[in-house]
Amino acid sequence: MMTEHRTDAAHITADQQAVEDDLVATVVASFDDTPDPRLKQMMQAVVRHLHAFIREVRLTEQEWNRAIEFLTAVGNITDDKRQEFVLLSDVLGASMQTIAVNNQAHANATEATVFGPFFVADSPQIPLGGDIGGGAPGQPCWIEGTVTDTDGRPVPGAKVEVWEADEDGLYDVQYPDGRVSGRAHFFTDDNGSYRFWGLTPTPYPIPHDGPVGTMLEAVNRSPMRASHLHFMVTADNLRTLVTHIFVSGDDLLTSDSVFGVKDSLVQDFREQAPGTPTPDGRDPGDRSWSRVHFDIVLAPAGT
Amino acid sequence: MMTEHRTDAAHITADQQAVEDDLVATVVASFDDTPDPRLKQMMQAVVRHLHAFIREVRLTEQEWNRAIEFLTAVGNITDDKRQEFVLLSDVLGASMQTIAVNNQAHANATEATVFGPFFVADSPQIPLGGDIGGGAPGQPCWIEGTVTDTDGRPVPGAKVEVWEADEDGLYDVQYPDGRVSGRAHFFTDDNGSYRFWGLTPTPYPIPHDGPVGTMLEAVNRSPMRASHLHFMVTADNLRTLVTHIFVSGDDLLTSDSVFGVKDSLVQDFREQAPGTPTPDGRDPGDRSWSRVHFDIVLAPAGT
Repeated sequence: MMTEHRTDAAHITADQQAVEDDLVATVVASFDDTPDPRLKQMMQAVVRHLHAFIREVRLTEQEWNRAIEFLTAVGNITDDKRQEFVLLSDVLGASMQTIAVNNQAHANATEATVFGPFFVADSPQIPLGGDIGGGAPGQPCWIEGTVTDTDGRPVPGAKVEVWEADEDGLYDVQYPDGRVSGRAHFFTDDNGSYRFWGLTPTPYPIPHDGPVGTMLEAVNRSPMRASHLHFMVTADNLRTLVTHIFVSGDDLLTSDSVFGVKDSLVQDFREQAPGTPTPDGRDPGDRSWSRVHFDIVLAPAGT
Repeated sequence: MMTEHRTDAAHITADQQAVEDDLVATVVASFDDTPDPRLKQMMQAVVRHLHAFIREVRLTEQEWNRAIEFLTAVGNITDDKRQEFVLLSDVLGASMQTIAVNNQAHANATEATVFGPFFVADSPQIPLGGDIGGGAPGQPCWIEGTVTDTDGRPVPGAKVEVWEADEDGLYDVQYPDGRVSGRAHFFTDDNGSYRFWGLTPTPYPIPHDGPVGTMLEAVNRSPMRASHLHFMVTADNLRTLVTHIFVSGDDLLTSDSVFGVKDSLVQDFREQAPGTPTPDGRDPGDRSWSRVHFDIVLAPAGT
């Protein structure tokens, strides 16, 4: 793969190749005495891939300077509230590739996708059929389904954590007022079923007023994420699932800025005209609402 | 190279390979509309190598978190005075590989090495035979040689900038008092010759009280740099040379923390007993001094 893409290979002499190869070997060997074998493996792999990049593109000293400046800017904007390195990993697909590597497909188990920066532990618990909204603006959406294992057996008592942005494109934690909205957790019933009121997901941009946003602009990419609702599902002896559901028909499905979309996670959110009776008799007033069915299949732990 | 080092390859199914390959292809394609072709090439190469690393080591989500934390720490300590990203690039050999890529050997031209973070533009000008010390503590050292092109022709009027740490292991800019010492510039004479008083180079550690130092400790590597004196030589129509000279016999030559040592740059610093007459009649009192001869050969510009 490297040689296919190598540029200017024509004027790299054998002597020069040897100089570069020798340097890689020397740097790799400098990690030989690392006590932790896994750390040793990772550092040596970092070195090989980093050097392969520099050699492939024949990185200039000016470009190296520019890269140092970019990383410095990413570091400078990062603090307790803003994690620009995570954004960078996300828009380079590195977060999603890490998810892919750690969540191999197993039978018919539901696919995983990116965790994102907006999860909060200890969200409010709601009863089944409750509302996660907490006053967040948006179209009401009834979400229901089952949690089963890959043999189709219901999983009672599975912990389901859900979180989503409001229709203004913001998660509760992005507001300065300390609100808790658009997030909750609940447990599946004896049949492994679940149901709750949330909001129909709407699109929003990842934070793009920093160096990652500047980079996206320079490469002509949008910061928009496809509309989605987050799930994390935990149950004994089963693999924890971190995933989203996406909205069928969303224009952004093919250009999600963090590469989180998987076909199997795109769901049909059925629009309900104002006045359509709701599953639990709730009255959404004179507004429309939507509903979606999402069955979740958990792989065995350790797969 | 990648497949040789791949771990756990045995249980990666063809389907899983396809999932991972498809993700790489999707992320690479997301940069297809980058207006600047060079930026496009670099971003796509970054993506391929970054994903190859993640896939090769089968990076866990916990390790991904640890990497984000490490980069955040590197970013947090970096400011106008402390450049931890440069240190990181240095200890991974990336700085030296960038130098290697941009300074291919040309005939008998002097080899380049790392620039380092302690260069200062507009150093004091001294006459030939002058002293760069500025009061810095250390053993006096007489340095002399010629600057020629690769055809052996002398280069008169070449600008030679030199800088070095004092015997306490610190550059002037590392002191808080604004001193200027251990650095100067001068121009070669009509014969392309130069000579000056400096200090016999002594070893020192790169700053190791930050995350890069912690990493070096975890991998059992020393932060010490081999003893050296920096040169930058600039002349019309010739390739600018950034290099060091190293001290023959220094124990650290084989373990320089930034991989800057090249055999051709290791020079014989000859110890002179107290009372030995100096080349310019200067009296170093009752202390010993040293002398070294370093001839510099500049490649043509554009090579």
